[in-house]
Amino acid sequence: MDLKATLNTYQKRVESGIDIWVPSGDTQPAQLHAAMRYSVEAGGKRIRPILTLASAELFNTAEDPVPAAVALECIHTYSLIHDDLPSIDNSDLRRGKPTCHKQFDEPTALLAGDALLTLAFQILSEAYRDNPILSSALVLELSNAAGSQRLIGGQMEDILGEHSDYTREQLDYIHLNKTAALITVAMTMGARIGGANQEELGKLAEIGRNVGLTFQILDDILDATSDDNTLGKPTGADSEHQKTTYIKLFGLEDARVHAKSLTGKARELCQQLDCNSAFLSEFIASLEHRIQ
Amino acid sequence: MDLKATLNTYQKRVESGIDIWVPSGDTQPAQLHAAMRYSVEAGGKRIRPILTLASAELFNTAEDPVPAAVALECIHTYSLIHDDLPSIDNSDLRRGKPTCHKQFDEPTALLAGDALLTLAFQILSEAYRDNPILSSALVLELSNAAGSQRLIGGQMEDILGEHSDYTREQLDYIHLNKTAALITVAMTMGARIGGANQEELGKLAEIGRNVGLTFQILDDILDATSDDNTLGKPTGADSEHQKTTYIKLFGLEDARVHAKSLTGKARELCQQLDCNSAFLSEFIASLEHRIQ
Repeated sequence: MDLKATLNTYQKRVESGIDIWVPSGDTQPAQLHAAMRYSVEAGGKRIRPILTLASAELFNTAEDPVPAAVALECIHTYSLIHDDLPSIDNSDLRRGKPTCHKQFDEPTALLAGDALLTLAFQILSEAYRDNPILSSALVLELSNAAGSQRLIGGQMEDILGEHSDYTREQLDYIHLNKTAALITVAMTMGARIGGANQEELGKLAEIGRNVGLTFQILDDILDATSDDNTLGKPTGADSEHQKTTYIKLFGLEDARVHAKSLTGKARELCQQLDCNSAFLSEFIASLEHRIQ
Repeated sequence: MDLKATLNTYQKRVESGIDIWVPSGDTQPAQLHAAMRYSVEAGGKRIRPILTLASAELFNTAEDPVPAAVALECIHTYSLIHDDLPSIDNSDLRRGKPTCHKQFDEPTALLAGDALLTLAFQILSEAYRDNPILSSALVLELSNAAGSQRLIGGQMEDILGEHSDYTREQLDYIHLNKTAALITVAMTMGARIGGANQEELGKLAEIGRNVGLTFQILDDILDATSDDNTLGKPTGADSEHQKTTYIKLFGLEDARVHAKSLTGKARELCQQLDCNSAFLSEFIASLEHRIQ
């Protein structure tokens, strides 16, 4: 399998979906929709929605997973827009481009985030309206993953934890919720659309959890070892904000060892699935290479 | 009918529902949930959720309208928290109490708003999970009303319109979306839960539109004629921010005449409903008295 070409094909499907489901930039009010489009089109790697498509295609999907993938990318993008705001991370750059409030202004970025969050649920209820059982299950799953005890909860604890020393358990709470919750729901939403049974959904959730934690550790490693140009955003920010990271708690080498045990576990679970999980396995292997 | 007593009974049902559906203030992360609770319990009149309950009870409802009413109040509260933030209205007081970012801090208020918005969809998908057709119809309806072309769109145009002269049409766009969208969906969600047919849903939507516009004009009138203590928030803010209001466009007297024509139309529509709409009619009449 040519992983890069496959990722590229998935990415194009996600981007066509975005073009269909996110109102165009000239929809009234144009400034709001232009800001939503700006951020959702700002060159993300589309990891989460790609995982939705790939998870759906493990099974015999009759339903189209693209709208759910777009809904997920809307949630991810809103959380980045709000995190970047002056009152939280005060970031000027994201993926090498001005953040939403820098390109537009603060009120517009705030409302564009709100609107993308709301749009995620509009998409799920509109795209799957002929299959209300699926539609309401997806809304339940995504709203829980994005809610006050998962995504937003992790973000809140992360903010509260700046300038303080966290234990391993507290750091796990933050990462499980701030990062792994959306990666996990990306995979379980896809699998649900594909028609997975409960046991398969459980395995996908466990893979998602391991992949999500790997992402977070990888992010910490890159923040500590990369440079601004390579990463497209300022590096060293964690240490500057005195954030507790895996690196600070365990040191670089132990963080790498921990991440590799997570990817190993995720690949093992892939092999237990009774379907062609070659793409997922290769994708996880590629994360492993980046840990080196 | 004793309108005040009936309103009070409805309000208590809404507040019991809030206590069930909004996580308690000590749920981890406690600061986030305390902020959500603080704002959602900050003494609102619960007009929107009351309209949901009253609209459901026009019909032979088997489903409980309380969760939908709470979902709606979560959306209303989130929009107030975000509107009050320094980058938008920069308000220190709301209903006579410190606004969420004054009581807590800006990041907490931002995330509490996000979490209440998300919670609305969690509630709809959780509470009505045994009736997925209803659940997904409610999510579709609420997400549209709260989305970038209704509630948030109206808010965006309102911000863009400060310090400028709006036409009647532009002002109608703002008020129809910023205020009337949620009032309308409050009534149609209730009616849908009650089992209303398409014609009845259409009438409730039209009543909601008229009541919503009346509310906005009433708000403009009170801002221009009341004092801070009576209103529980600073008055004269519209004129200070050079906002275009109905008062600025038409003068106080014409604004009153316009509002009365809206309530007259709404009451007429109530009488056309083939059910006991006494509460709704009395409620609308009480708005009419406040216009004087």
